[in-house]
Amino acid sequence: MLMSKIFAYGIRQDEEPFLKKWAGQHPEVTLDYTDQLLTPATAKLAAGADGVVVYQQLDYTPEVLQALADLGITKMSLRNVGIDNIALDKAKELDFTITNVPVYSPNAIAEHAAIQTARILRQTKVMDEKVAKGDLRWAPTIGREVRDQTVGIIGAGHIGQVYMKIMEGFGAKVIAYDLRKKPFLEEQGYYVDSLDDLYAQADVISLHVPAIKETTNMINDETIAKMKDDAVLVNVSRGALVDTDAVIRALDSGKLYGFVLDTYEDEVGIFNQDWTGAEFPDARLNDLIHRPNVLVTPHTAFYTTHAVRNMVDKALDNNLAMVTGKQPATPVEF
Amino acid sequence: MLMSKIFAYGIRQDEEPFLKKWAGQHPEVTLDYTDQLLTPATAKLAAGADGVVVYQQLDYTPEVLQALADLGITKMSLRNVGIDNIALDKAKELDFTITNVPVYSPNAIAEHAAIQTARILRQTKVMDEKVAKGDLRWAPTIGREVRDQTVGIIGAGHIGQVYMKIMEGFGAKVIAYDLRKKPFLEEQGYYVDSLDDLYAQADVISLHVPAIKETTNMINDETIAKMKDDAVLVNVSRGALVDTDAVIRALDSGKLYGFVLDTYEDEVGIFNQDWTGAEFPDARLNDLIHRPNVLVTPHTAFYTTHAVRNMVDKALDNNLAMVTGKQPATPVEF
Repeated sequence: MLMSKIFAYGIRQDEEPFLKKWAGQHPEVTLDYTDQLLTPATAKLAAGADGVVVYQQLDYTPEVLQALADLGITKMSLRNVGIDNIALDKAKELDFTITNVPVYSPNAIAEHAAIQTARILRQTKVMDEKVAKGDLRWAPTIGREVRDQTVGIIGAGHIGQVYMKIMEGFGAKVIAYDLRKKPFLEEQGYYVDSLDDLYAQADVISLHVPAIKETTNMINDETIAKMKDDAVLVNVSRGALVDTDAVIRALDSGKLYGFVLDTYEDEVGIFNQDWTGAEFPDARLNDLIHRPNVLVTPHTAFYTTHAVRNMVDKALDNNLAMVTGKQPATPVEF
Repeated sequence: MLMSKIFAYGIRQDEEPFLKKWAGQHPEVTLDYTDQLLTPATAKLAAGADGVVVYQQLDYTPEVLQALADLGITKMSLRNVGIDNIALDKAKELDFTITNVPVYSPNAIAEHAAIQTARILRQTKVMDEKVAKGDLRWAPTIGREVRDQTVGIIGAGHIGQVYMKIMEGFGAKVIAYDLRKKPFLEEQGYYVDSLDDLYAQADVISLHVPAIKETTNMINDETIAKMKDDAVLVNVSRGALVDTDAVIRALDSGKLYGFVLDTYEDEVGIFNQDWTGAEFPDARLNDLIHRPNVLVTPHTAFYTTHAVRNMVDKALDNNLAMVTGKQPATPVEF
């Protein structure tokens, strides 16, 4: 049997078990890896490999692609979805083939949105802070039951649909709006005709749409004014959907009961960094982090064992397909 | 129309809106109230009333019952369930009739259990603390998806069943054990034949049984040893069900992944008190409060607007029935 050789970069501790499991299931592959990122200096670690598996925020520069090509390696599999940081012109020139993992776990994100929604309604942040300092009085930290809410979902794709199911499991009334009318929404009585209808009826509004021109800052002073008093806003999709200043005004006025944020319009360069002991780089975000009725997570909704397993497995499957001359499941067109 | 007069004691701020709403719906009743508790000194506030509505941890002593009887008041409606703190012999001697509210909201408790379960799996306490101090790195704080868990429910009464539905909404596999075989559990394939089977299969174990002799310390070194590694234990039922020291040993050894506690065997005199600025009275509880994989709430699972509305409404309905010579819905036998 001809062995295939794959080399993986930037392997985190939480990815290692899945990598080893995959290797155990593929005795025909020699799999080596490092926790280091792919740079012109580390490219030589892959010498002898047929393909590489990668995931990093760091740019895939023309230099680093050239360094791989010089080793005869032009098959690269991302463990994530985004290709913005790849020098695609150079990749094309060097005849690279690239794969990504477009979907790792819609449930990871939907579950996170649901948990944080329920936490805002239950005021867990306030109660946690009371308990931590020894204040064990329950009043006035009263909860709103999820079952009593009308939950409005904007965008009924994979993630929105899983979120709907979870909210229904709690007993909430679910309504949904999607630009593309989806028959199953109408059949099951979920569908509302317009965003205005959704804003008028929903106690919780959760965003599950991509950031495109039409959705940029779709949550703003004007649309918040259309919402019910004491509405809860949930954004685990894209920071650009929300005019953050408008949300802060609505939190200050008491119009909004709470806000869930896993994505933030200025998150690049701030999230996934450690700012302890340094000056926090964004005063507005810092303010949000410390509000009792705001839950901030740094784009971690996707981050589950299920998702990481899929990212590792699918990237390795893709790479193995490429290096053995087969069609990978999710090639990147460029 | 003959007006009925009802006086309510110990009305908290969060109860007031529901009290006022009920009064608005009952123009035939004169309803007065105070935030003070019922004592021999405050009994006279109820002078002229036909009945009283109450809720307090403070004892209903022979003296306070006598003081009410002296005012001609012998119809007393509790907004809660427990009657342990009533001098029942004296109440009988004075010919009191008493009502309680045995069920306010099973969903309040089931939702709380579900939210805290999901939070342990998602490591939200660790992530919240990281975010609060400015550490916005996501690794290694990885979540386990609820849908990947087998959730074992011990006790499939009202609360257990609601909890099951919520967990199913997340996509989890649910199994259940109840002393009384319930046909619907077997029909739907939930039922396991023994607690040992449940311990062997469940990733999450949630207790929804009363504290009786047979269930006291049912979670102990021996039963924990039967559980899967990395199991999550959820107790929002009764503190006495759990040998807390055994749970701490299992947290220390890593056998248990996490622990949700809303009830605690030594909670009386500790919960619903403010210990800030004082010496915390229970070192073991203090240790649990500050563990990253333990979520402590001070018996607040019941505490929702839905439950409080039911407590207020049902107590007032009961009292009105009594003072107008009708049969109240939930009289207390004593």
